[in-house]
Amino acid sequence: MQLIEETLRSIEPLDDRAAAAAQARLDSLTKPLGSLGYLEEIACRYAAIRHDPAARIGRRVIALFAADHGIAGEAVSAYPKSVTLEMLRNIAAGGAAISAITRESGYRLVVTDVGVETDTSIEPIPHIRYRRIGAGTDNFLRGPAMSIGQARAAIEVGIEVARTEADDGATLIGLGEMGIGNSTAATAMLASLTGLEAARLVGRGTGLDDLGLRHKLEVVEAGLRLHRAARGDAPATLAALGGFEIAAMTGVCLGAAAARVPVVVDGFIATAGAVAAEKLYPGLYRHLFFGHRSAESGHAAVLKAIDVRPILDLDVRLGEGVGSALAMRVIESALVLFDRMATFASAGVSGRSR
Amino acid sequence: MQLIEETLRSIEPLDDRAAAAAQARLDSLTKPLGSLGYLEEIACRYAAIRHDPAARIGRRVIALFAADHGIAGEAVSAYPKSVTLEMLRNIAAGGAAISAITRESGYRLVVTDVGVETDTSIEPIPHIRYRRIGAGTDNFLRGPAMSIGQARAAIEVGIEVARTEADDGATLIGLGEMGIGNSTAATAMLASLTGLEAARLVGRGTGLDDLGLRHKLEVVEAGLRLHRAARGDAPATLAALGGFEIAAMTGVCLGAAAARVPVVVDGFIATAGAVAAEKLYPGLYRHLFFGHRSAESGHAAVLKAIDVRPILDLDVRLGEGVGSALAMRVIESALVLFDRMATFASAGVSGRSR
Repeated sequence: MQLIEETLRSIEPLDDRAAAAAQARLDSLTKPLGSLGYLEEIACRYAAIRHDPAARIGRRVIALFAADHGIAGEAVSAYPKSVTLEMLRNIAAGGAAISAITRESGYRLVVTDVGVETDTSIEPIPHIRYRRIGAGTDNFLRGPAMSIGQARAAIEVGIEVARTEADDGATLIGLGEMGIGNSTAATAMLASLTGLEAARLVGRGTGLDDLGLRHKLEVVEAGLRLHRAARGDAPATLAALGGFEIAAMTGVCLGAAAARVPVVVDGFIATAGAVAAEKLYPGLYRHLFFGHRSAESGHAAVLKAIDVRPILDLDVRLGEGVGSALAMRVIESALVLFDRMATFASAGVSGRSR
Repeated sequence: MQLIEETLRSIEPLDDRAAAAAQARLDSLTKPLGSLGYLEEIACRYAAIRHDPAARIGRRVIALFAADHGIAGEAVSAYPKSVTLEMLRNIAAGGAAISAITRESGYRLVVTDVGVETDTSIEPIPHIRYRRIGAGTDNFLRGPAMSIGQARAAIEVGIEVARTEADDGATLIGLGEMGIGNSTAATAMLASLTGLEAARLVGRGTGLDDLGLRHKLEVVEAGLRLHRAARGDAPATLAALGGFEIAAMTGVCLGAAAARVPVVVDGFIATAGAVAAEKLYPGLYRHLFFGHRSAESGHAAVLKAIDVRPILDLDVRLGEGVGSALAMRVIESALVLFDRMATFASAGVSGRSR
């Protein structure tokens, strides 16, 4: 089975006619022309991705992936590795930020363990799906984080999640992740894939001090030297420097695009997954929304380099898909306005006089 | 009755202890310290305005005021004056943008006619409250837009709306407005109150072309010359150059602050009302949230000059309170996260290791 290649082949271009029809409807609504600003672009692009001029809203889903990172052994995070599993339990129990926000917003939260260090699948945590690629990645300073086969398997997990959710009526999927150490993996991946300098990309993650930040940069630069052969290549970079959850998010981007479902990219880590997806399918960004500009310092540099406009800018840097969920509320508002406003004709409101 | 002075006297400073207690709670939640970014500041300031360390959410209201403008006779808008009343009917019938977004979000929409040209109070439009100060303002090129007594009466209408809604359980009030010509009044007011040059503040409103924009600037500059005695003075500027709906929004800012209810300021027009309120009660901005940076070109300049951070930046320039409502959804998310997340202790999640 060549699920990745099959998925790449089945992605269609955006439906320009649906976008034009959506813009025509927007222009007929009782508001000054263009006055909903970026919300109009959101509604039209949603229609184009969905091939649906009516831009209907269905089920909204946060797809969250959790995994551990060998590189966390290099003391690159403010928190111990055990927090990945503890937070997975907290998410499942409803206590995490993403639990609160999805419950409030009526979003389905799909949480997949793609490789937390401790295997809990024997006594499964309720509400967690197990698609484990391994017991965490290896330390990328000592070799590749994972094999190419594992990278492909993790991408396939993401594709399958997107397919399943799309079949179940999802029309919007937000990315989320949990994995202590994953901002280090994402930094290295983004440097390898975009060519931006690691020093511009590296940030404090969950809260490193100055000393920790310098050390993290050294670790990333050492990883980039060791794996320089992977530069610019998505599967090779994912394998050398990535994480199972990042590869799974790459898979969601691809699988959702093939299923005509827009994806909302969360912050810095999820963006690494999206950049890998764009490398595999140039033009894929048009199928995605970037949810927010994270406070993680490298995120602004990446968003600028890849020339995308984030929906929100609230200095959030929590991960889990919180930025996705907040942005999905804005997208929903855009679609509600699109669907529920009166037209000039139906409301008897005069048009422009000059 | 000296309602304005009584209201100004009853505004208390923010409750710093409530803010500190809210921050302490935020720091106990299962997330990296400070990782909710601006959402944390929003939750803490909400607690401080409300004098409520638990930052509870009650009823959320959009207070929308409609009025006509004599200055619309100078061809400063892309739409005819009749649109104010037509849109008032559309809002009441549920077809306007603000109707759709408040319905979707479960917000109460309180619409007050403070001076639409045509008096419909004899055959009242359903769902509209009538507190008419006049049949539209006068043309400010021929004299003051209204008397000082009318400006005070319009402010008092706003105070009363805020009081009534607060008594009814409102804990968050968003400003909204409708009035053809009111971006011209707001431009003149903001130039008069902030000292910023009219050329930096003037914008296309609902959609002027280049010629219309130049003409609008000439009108504003002529108004400022005629009413230069009003410079820097809020009641005099409201009377000389303002609008009934703008003065009413000034009143909501004051009345809500006195009732410990945060106000969400919408775009350019509502900001003119807020700037007048700050002139009447220096420090009032701390009781307000600025909902969004509008696409109206002068708005960014004003927000920068008064040193406030808008919650959203979506190029919306529709008015009606749409920017307020969108921002209120973000504030709600901040409060839901504040209230519903687990603590490190309750969830058994490890703290920082370094």
